[in-house]
Amino acid sequence: MTDLQINQTDPWKRLEKEADRFQQPTLHLKALLSDHNRFDLFSKKSAGIFFDYSRQRVDENTMALLFELAKKARIMEKFNDMMNGKKVNVTENRAALHTATRNLSGKPIHVDGQDVMPELERVKEDLRSFSEKIHQGKIKGSTGRPFSHAVVIGIGGSYLGTEFVATALSSFADKNIRIHFLSNVDFHNFDAIKRKIDPLETLFISISKSNTTAETLANEKQAWEYLKNAGLDPSKHFVSVTGKDSPPSAIVKKSLQTFHMFDYIGGRYSVSSAVGGLPLSLFLGFDRFCAFLEGASEMDTHARTASIENNLPLIAALIDTWNNNFLKYTALGIIPYASPLSKLAPHIQQLYMESNGKSVTTEGKTLNIRSGWIVFGEPGTNAQHSFFQLAHQGMAFPIDFIGVIHPQYEETHCLSKGVTNHQELWANLISQPQALAMGKADADPTKSFSGNRPSSTLVLNDLSPENVGKLLSFYEARTLFQAFLWDINPFDQFGVELGKVLAGNIRKQMAKKNENNAHQLNTNNPISDFYLNALFSGNI
Amino acid sequence: MTDLQINQTDPWKRLEKEADRFQQPTLHLKALLSDHNRFDLFSKKSAGIFFDYSRQRVDENTMALLFELAKKARIMEKFNDMMNGKKVNVTENRAALHTATRNLSGKPIHVDGQDVMPELERVKEDLRSFSEKIHQGKIKGSTGRPFSHAVVIGIGGSYLGTEFVATALSSFADKNIRIHFLSNVDFHNFDAIKRKIDPLETLFISISKSNTTAETLANEKQAWEYLKNAGLDPSKHFVSVTGKDSPPSAIVKKSLQTFHMFDYIGGRYSVSSAVGGLPLSLFLGFDRFCAFLEGASEMDTHARTASIENNLPLIAALIDTWNNNFLKYTALGIIPYASPLSKLAPHIQQLYMESNGKSVTTEGKTLNIRSGWIVFGEPGTNAQHSFFQLAHQGMAFPIDFIGVIHPQYEETHCLSKGVTNHQELWANLISQPQALAMGKADADPTKSFSGNRPSSTLVLNDLSPENVGKLLSFYEARTLFQAFLWDINPFDQFGVELGKVLAGNIRKQMAKKNENNAHQLNTNNPISDFYLNALFSGNI
Repeated sequence: MTDLQINQTDPWKRLEKEADRFQQPTLHLKALLSDHNRFDLFSKKSAGIFFDYSRQRVDENTMALLFELAKKARIMEKFNDMMNGKKVNVTENRAALHTATRNLSGKPIHVDGQDVMPELERVKEDLRSFSEKIHQGKIKGSTGRPFSHAVVIGIGGSYLGTEFVATALSSFADKNIRIHFLSNVDFHNFDAIKRKIDPLETLFISISKSNTTAETLANEKQAWEYLKNAGLDPSKHFVSVTGKDSPPSAIVKKSLQTFHMFDYIGGRYSVSSAVGGLPLSLFLGFDRFCAFLEGASEMDTHARTASIENNLPLIAALIDTWNNNFLKYTALGIIPYASPLSKLAPHIQQLYMESNGKSVTTEGKTLNIRSGWIVFGEPGTNAQHSFFQLAHQGMAFPIDFIGVIHPQYEETHCLSKGVTNHQELWANLISQPQALAMGKADADPTKSFSGNRPSSTLVLNDLSPENVGKLLSFYEARTLFQAFLWDINPFDQFGVELGKVLAGNIRKQMAKKNENNAHQLNTNNPISDFYLNALFSGNI
Repeated sequence: MTDLQINQTDPWKRLEKEADRFQQPTLHLKALLSDHNRFDLFSKKSAGIFFDYSRQRVDENTMALLFELAKKARIMEKFNDMMNGKKVNVTENRAALHTATRNLSGKPIHVDGQDVMPELERVKEDLRSFSEKIHQGKIKGSTGRPFSHAVVIGIGGSYLGTEFVATALSSFADKNIRIHFLSNVDFHNFDAIKRKIDPLETLFISISKSNTTAETLANEKQAWEYLKNAGLDPSKHFVSVTGKDSPPSAIVKKSLQTFHMFDYIGGRYSVSSAVGGLPLSLFLGFDRFCAFLEGASEMDTHARTASIENNLPLIAALIDTWNNNFLKYTALGIIPYASPLSKLAPHIQQLYMESNGKSVTTEGKTLNIRSGWIVFGEPGTNAQHSFFQLAHQGMAFPIDFIGVIHPQYEETHCLSKGVTNHQELWANLISQPQALAMGKADADPTKSFSGNRPSSTLVLNDLSPENVGKLLSFYEARTLFQAFLWDINPFDQFGVELGKVLAGNIRKQMAKKNENNAHQLNTNNPISDFYLNALFSGNI
């Protein structure tokens, strides 16, 4: 398919016909689910994740065509190329080796003839050593007090993955260190954190691959100032994570220690690098961070080695494509029935929408199909009482339901309606996909449910560090498989550049006005000028 | 239009042609914005909110047609009917009078010939009196300690609005009471709260209009048990908000005091009733709750009395309809450039998706157009570093940008790149809508921005209680105007019923198994049985 885009291939065209076929009432989910073999056929367990797609609008014919499409697009080869260090990030001429951060095989991975494993191992050793010293009180704040707060300064990929994992595993946090995320340049964010921390016991972790992110630079400065105002030596309260080849900011230069990430690790894929490794090692302990890596590694291996027909993230990616390009859904809901996974959806929202919200093929041609969609979600059962009205009776969208067999707390024996809270949660987890799929006819249209609304159900035995790692890797691989299918580059993000350029121009006007209040604000755009004047006049 | 649905009317049909016209390059936003009158024409300020829709894909012709459509649908009359106490919730034969909770006109509002104002005033007086007694330490916990924690037990509409307002105004919280939200039946939620509270100083506020919400009943029991286990008299630590005519639960019966809401106030519209009033009065003080009501009242009056052409929430609703039904966008992003508004999107997500995710007209006919869409969002600039890649170069979706001139904190003078953090925030707020609208051509498709991506910008002078009330009322009225245009009932939510029924069946199986471990789980559904067995066996 050198010159053909994916939608010009034969399996794609046959899938378009397949989508027409799926308009028939005989292929309503209610009809499909009457087949008693269906659940066995369309559910699989691998690498600790049970994946049930029996309530997706597919049958064996659909899946066969999707597998054919995957082969046509050579997505397994591309995934292997990625894991082997090939420069799959073509626009930036870089490898994409987040999986190398959890390569536990002992085998080298070469980029430009150099094995990257030694430098990655060195970083891990730095993380182990540093986190242990903090936990043992060998490294302390500038007044000699041990650290009890870690504030991650970073935005986007520099914190969303870490926030997801830290929230998922907070019940394991026994190191007497609380974690906070200073992401937004909005000072309200810092103001709220200041109320919770004691500067004498606070370590700031500044994270920026490029060291040029405006928000992070601004917050670094604020934090430095805050420490100075508290009479402390800020350099003893600052560590940093940056790209090895990025010129350090003034503050990064002065920080206690710098941990490296590398140009072959993108921000949104960086939670298993030092970006996540440093804060998570402090918060949970280095061993738990390693356990998390082991889980991710296990799923990486599954994604790389399982056959197309048995590959969970690949099957999920193919179904996403089917739902998006053929059945024309425009969003994916992620609904974990587990509060510790409350930050999964925001992380996958970035991972997916920033990776796959693209309109250009890897060959630089305009993509002639729709790529990404919207990813959003809240935990169940909360979501049921919020936006599920739309899911059941309004515009349909596919959903990932996620369940966990064993909760992280010790179960109480207090029953309501004869069941525990955990059982109540599961009663809902089990019911919702069924209600969405089956629907229910009623003479009163108000009480009628059309059904045929697709979902998958993912189940984990528990929320251990390993399993959270598996879940992360599952979503990463799924995102990437879909990008490889569409032949887009999931590793760049040029779409965020234009806004940055425009903000730079406006910032210049502001800076001039700050220097000299007589400066006439002028951006050559009347709307921008209006807002600038409103801001400086203090009134709209 | 007695028998005609809205899409069969003449203005709708002309709007369909208008949408075709808008495919022309001459109506690209870049072209539209070259008109220097545009910003004056398409921005308005009323009731404290500045609303700029100059970057929406409309021109004067479009707006004229939309205004005509609004008249055709009699939406102003319907809005007035609602505020006057008419039973606009036709499926449940109820009035919809959330606006009465902030009716400061002194005029009566009749339902079934009865003025509802006296009972609403009584509730407000109860709130004043109770919150003052708590703040003065006249009401204390069962060991005589004053209350320093309020835990709201409630899900969906019983907490999302309160969470939004409490988060927006937390910098005003000077009553030494912290607020927590126990919404999810997932006990992880309670477990996390337990780590933050002291039972001796904790007041639980159980909120359920019906007193039958399974999640809330389960959490009430857990909280009661928790207090008992701490050696306290739980009845001294429990208050409740319930529908006046709802039979109280065992725990509501025993609570210290019960505050009423009424059948004419729906959960997702209830933040200005006792549902929000009790927790917000405790957290912020009754006076600030009243100031919040005053702001909401001011916007209610604007929505009710402003002409169609000058009515902010109505214009917003018409543009939503234009974007949804004619330009075929499927989601709305809500991006406040103000961290205190971080819970606005989750609240509006419920408000909008539960109200307008319907497929049936008020006359009980199947609606023959698409109604609701997906609402989601995160604060800026965070969102820029998360999912804005898709917004700029992938699938387009309209966005509400929200800015606040004066932050709630005292500004520091620490500059980065010559600007304060607040200015940096605004540089981005100003730039993003421009980048989305204008785009930028580039010979390299990867760096090319197609532009023509619509957004509105809303600006408030500050985040005072009054302004937060205005913002709430703006979104409520906007949601309702759109429902009235489509002729759907925004006050019921039958779409959540089927899942509840199915969960009830599964719960029964669980309860039987809890009573007798030999019970064979059987729900007549092999998939449900599989999951039930996995849960009880502890392994999948």
